Amino acid sequence: MTDTRPGRRPGNPGTRDQIVAAARAAFAAQGLEATSLRAVARAAGVDAALVHHYFRSKQELFVASTDLPIDPAALLAGVAADPDRAGELMAGAFLAMLDDADARQRLLAILRAAATDEAAAASLRGLIHERVARPAAEALAADHPSLRATLVGSQLVGLAFARHVVGVEPLASTPAEVLAAAVGPTLQRYLTGAIA
Amino acid sequence: MTDTRPGRRPGNPGTRDQIVAAARAAFAAQGLEATSLRAVARAAGVDAALVHHYFRSKQELFVASTDLPIDPAALLAGVAADPDRAGELMAGAFLAMLDDADARQRLLAILRAAATDEAAAASLRGLIHERVARPAAEALAADHPSLRATLVGSQLVGLAFARHVVGVEPLASTPAEVLAAAVGPTLQRYLTGAIA
Repeated sequence: MTDTRPGRRPGNPGTRDQIVAAARAAFAAQGLEATSLRAVARAAGVDAALVHHYFRSKQELFVASTDLPIDPAALLAGVAADPDRAGELMAGAFLAMLDDADARQRLLAILRAAATDEAAAASLRGLIHERVARPAAEALAADHPSLRATLVGSQLVGLAFARHVVGVEPLASTPAEVLAAAVGPTLQRYLTGAIA
Repeated sequence: MTDTRPGRRPGNPGTRDQIVAAARAAFAAQGLEATSLRAVARAAGVDAALVHHYFRSKQELFVASTDLPIDPAALLAGVAADPDRAGELMAGAFLAMLDDADARQRLLAILRAAATDEAAAASLRGLIHERVARPAAEALAADHPSLRATLVGSQLVGLAFARHVVGVEPLASTPAEVLAAAVGPTLQRYLTGAIA
């Protein structure tokens, strides 16, 4: 008998990965709302109690199963560390991430899926809520933290779309550092300035 | 014999529509670069000379055949008319357009096609060049007019994507006038401020 059998005891190093893989498939097929922890446990061939052993909530499992190429919480933590340069640093980190072929492909796959599939869009909504809006509320000492974080997201996603999906010139061939300087003050105002 | 036969004389009111319909199909299937006026004439069942009678260039035909729900040149003309409020006016006009179900569907169809199909992305690149970058160079009394116009486009497309494709909260349910006030200064700086 191999260690991939259902019902083996907690702590087996393959179990968590197995749950995450089943969750990724379920979230991709049905989105966040329609996926239950019980259904994920069934698909992974484990007890529901074991899923709860590793993940306290469906949201926590969702975050673990979605392979974002960049960590919004880490970007937002940078805001607290250097509030006056946060916008420029965030734009630079995002554009540097897009210059990495593997990370870019992962982000564009998420955007393409969300553009054409409601379940994928629902998953992305959940991801943004858990990974962007909630950390923003903790990191930003300002009013409307979630609106600020999603305005930042709208500019960054639009930049990725224009630069790498459509390939609009001259934006597509403008060096990342020039774009970071152009977009940085936008993010800075969304994060810490007057927005409403 | 009906008036849809090939080779009928210039001025027939159906001919121009027939050419535009053939061009729309060709651009959607192959993109701007790979489509020739000759191939469009053949698909429309008319002489190539007749296509030239209606459209001076492939770009002019492309612009006529792509059914954008908003006219970027008109938005940019507003910049010249009221330069200090251009960003806010442009954001307001774009968000008002997105509140119209038909216009929104047409824009989202273009974005979805570009997200998943290279030929559609190529068509959109051509459209942006003809309809955004070129009018911008005429309307903006500033350095880097095309980069400015495409930065504006990146924010507007990101807003449409976040608000209507993904449906990110709280952005999706924030009233258009609040968003226009939040995004207006971004567009204003991209249009007339220091960007590089």
